[in-house]
Amino acid sequence: MTRTLTILGATGSVGASTLDLIRRNRDAWRVEALTANGNVSELARLAREFGAAIAVIADEARLPELREALAGTGIEAAGGAQALCEAAARPVDLTVAAIVGGAGLAPVMAAVEQGGTIALANKEALVSAGEVMTAAVARHGATLLPMDSEHNAIFQCLAGNRIKDVARITLTASGGPFRAWSLEQMDAATPAQAVAHPNWDMGAKISVDSATMMNKGLEFIEAHHLFPVGLDRLRIIVHPQSVVHSLVEFRDRSTLAQLGPPDMRVPIASCLAWPGRMDTPMQPLDLAAIGQLSFFAPDEARFPATRLCREAIQAGGAAPAVLNAANEVAVAAFLSGQIAFTRIAAMVEETLTRYSPPAPGSLGEVFAIDREARVQTMLELN
Amino acid sequence: MTRTLTILGATGSVGASTLDLIRRNRDAWRVEALTANGNVSELARLAREFGAAIAVIADEARLPELREALAGTGIEAAGGAQALCEAAARPVDLTVAAIVGGAGLAPVMAAVEQGGTIALANKEALVSAGEVMTAAVARHGATLLPMDSEHNAIFQCLAGNRIKDVARITLTASGGPFRAWSLEQMDAATPAQAVAHPNWDMGAKISVDSATMMNKGLEFIEAHHLFPVGLDRLRIIVHPQSVVHSLVEFRDRSTLAQLGPPDMRVPIASCLAWPGRMDTPMQPLDLAAIGQLSFFAPDEARFPATRLCREAIQAGGAAPAVLNAANEVAVAAFLSGQIAFTRIAAMVEETLTRYSPPAPGSLGEVFAIDREARVQTMLELN
Repeated sequence: MTRTLTILGATGSVGASTLDLIRRNRDAWRVEALTANGNVSELARLAREFGAAIAVIADEARLPELREALAGTGIEAAGGAQALCEAAARPVDLTVAAIVGGAGLAPVMAAVEQGGTIALANKEALVSAGEVMTAAVARHGATLLPMDSEHNAIFQCLAGNRIKDVARITLTASGGPFRAWSLEQMDAATPAQAVAHPNWDMGAKISVDSATMMNKGLEFIEAHHLFPVGLDRLRIIVHPQSVVHSLVEFRDRSTLAQLGPPDMRVPIASCLAWPGRMDTPMQPLDLAAIGQLSFFAPDEARFPATRLCREAIQAGGAAPAVLNAANEVAVAAFLSGQIAFTRIAAMVEETLTRYSPPAPGSLGEVFAIDREARVQTMLELN
Repeated sequence: MTRTLTILGATGSVGASTLDLIRRNRDAWRVEALTANGNVSELARLAREFGAAIAVIADEARLPELREALAGTGIEAAGGAQALCEAAARPVDLTVAAIVGGAGLAPVMAAVEQGGTIALANKEALVSAGEVMTAAVARHGATLLPMDSEHNAIFQCLAGNRIKDVARITLTASGGPFRAWSLEQMDAATPAQAVAHPNWDMGAKISVDSATMMNKGLEFIEAHHLFPVGLDRLRIIVHPQSVVHSLVEFRDRSTLAQLGPPDMRVPIASCLAWPGRMDTPMQPLDLAAIGQLSFFAPDEARFPATRLCREAIQAGGAAPAVLNAANEVAVAAFLSGQIAFTRIAAMVEETLTRYSPPAPGSLGEVFAIDREARVQTMLELN
């Protein structure tokens, strides 16, 4: 049976990994819409290869270029933020929401409002707009499949179980490149050192988030929205090998864990084939070759970011959106050499203290909070 | 909602662990039948405590004693092998099959023939009578819930998944007390050394089986019958901490694992509450306190038992029943000081070579093969 698919953010790494799997199972899928931010040539190439019905470029100025690249193919071309949402609203069996950052929020909401099934890789949808998004999911009867490796692991462990039987959900964290560093060493850490992630090949922003453990804190916030077991039942554990992607303990003290290679194609495949399974090109897990799996309690004295995230979601309302915006500004300042590594979390905490607007009730209010939090954080740079 | 329960083998360790959990949830259960081999006083005490409808003692000579102990309680008393099967055939929501050894076969079959749900802790049902038993399960529409920690782990990992999507099932093995011993050291191993299991508190026979790794081989045979994925998709891995109880890898390279304390009450609770969950009195899993989980490939040069089991189930037919009987005789001979530890597997292999009867078609034929295999193995002692 052929299923229809839209990929929001087709030219990024999650989009590429998704299309790699689709390419291996061409008969199973018909591609409806592919979108990209600004990479016209890659978008056009993919739209042609997969015979998409429509290709959308977010940067409207580049629409003529896209039209030209798709001339004679019969593939519709569109551009701009509104076109992105219209493409996301086309009914499909599965929407892969892989646009990075706040730009992904409106298209995700458009897909949610169709009541569809959305494989979610965009962090902001649940971090900045958590309550707004989950309320819309409930109202429109949409289904969220978490595509992040940790949340996908939890989702898999919960299959066949009831959320009320969960005693504890534990997110694993690699601990990042500075896991064994002292605070003094981290003070002097360079951007190059921070982006050298031991297990995953990722972009600069998320690599820095991994080094501060802010990434794990943001995932903690996401987990709270995806799996409503209560904050006291959510934990983080440091697991440097990144083989165990997360664990769920049930009230009977059975714990289920999901393990796998550090390759996004595994959780993506889980979403694509859900509730079934599909083949992926990875090698079998060889635990004897890996030898040891180690686990450590997190150290929030050296890595305060997870505490900030826990406090932000406890405070609720606008706090997670403020935290996320402040973190983006602080990480950019670190990457451009303006601040020390340890200032990232400190700046986020300062912004959270200075700026506490009321809870957003719509995506528009989320965006306004995001903008103001960025301004407030930039003021700390001067 | 109250559910009805029968425990075959109520006075053994699995029976006691089951009743410990029932005791904590008295309102959820009504006990129909409790049975024991020869421990009349404990059986009568339990039957009174749990208000059983009937108590059955396998040793018929002790029936008068049981009658006396239950006088005036209104609890029916019965004795002998036939009474055991009649009690097992009474319709209940769940039968816990925890009789140790060949004596458990006929009562398990009686429960299977009612088409009921059977939580299976008896090894022989699937090792010696595998095809006979699984054919009866299919014919009568019975449901087997595996109660062994490893098979229960696999069962939990398969929830919400399809058997056809399984790429590999991996049984974990502690490796036993001789995991790091040389063959020469094992030659001189004493019964006291062999029964000192590092993680689980078990009887002498099963402790020796753990030391030879025959126990894991027998579980391999059971897994083959419970989870028909094919022998090439079944593996054993050595994991000395016994925290991960088994793993299932799917075709997409997601692996699910079940972890928990080395306490039989966890898998028992999983069977009692299936498909839900119930509370158990154990502590939460603390991976940071455990620190390291290690994994090794099994060494079949030092531990040939798993190879013998794999070959026996590959040969099929009567071979697993012959292996199991030969092993029981050899272990008894080792425990009584008649043979060296390393002779156990050697004797089993000799019996398998010398005696290869046709496949049993009934429990009666299984018993005949078992008896003859014991005789054949005892001949090797002289």
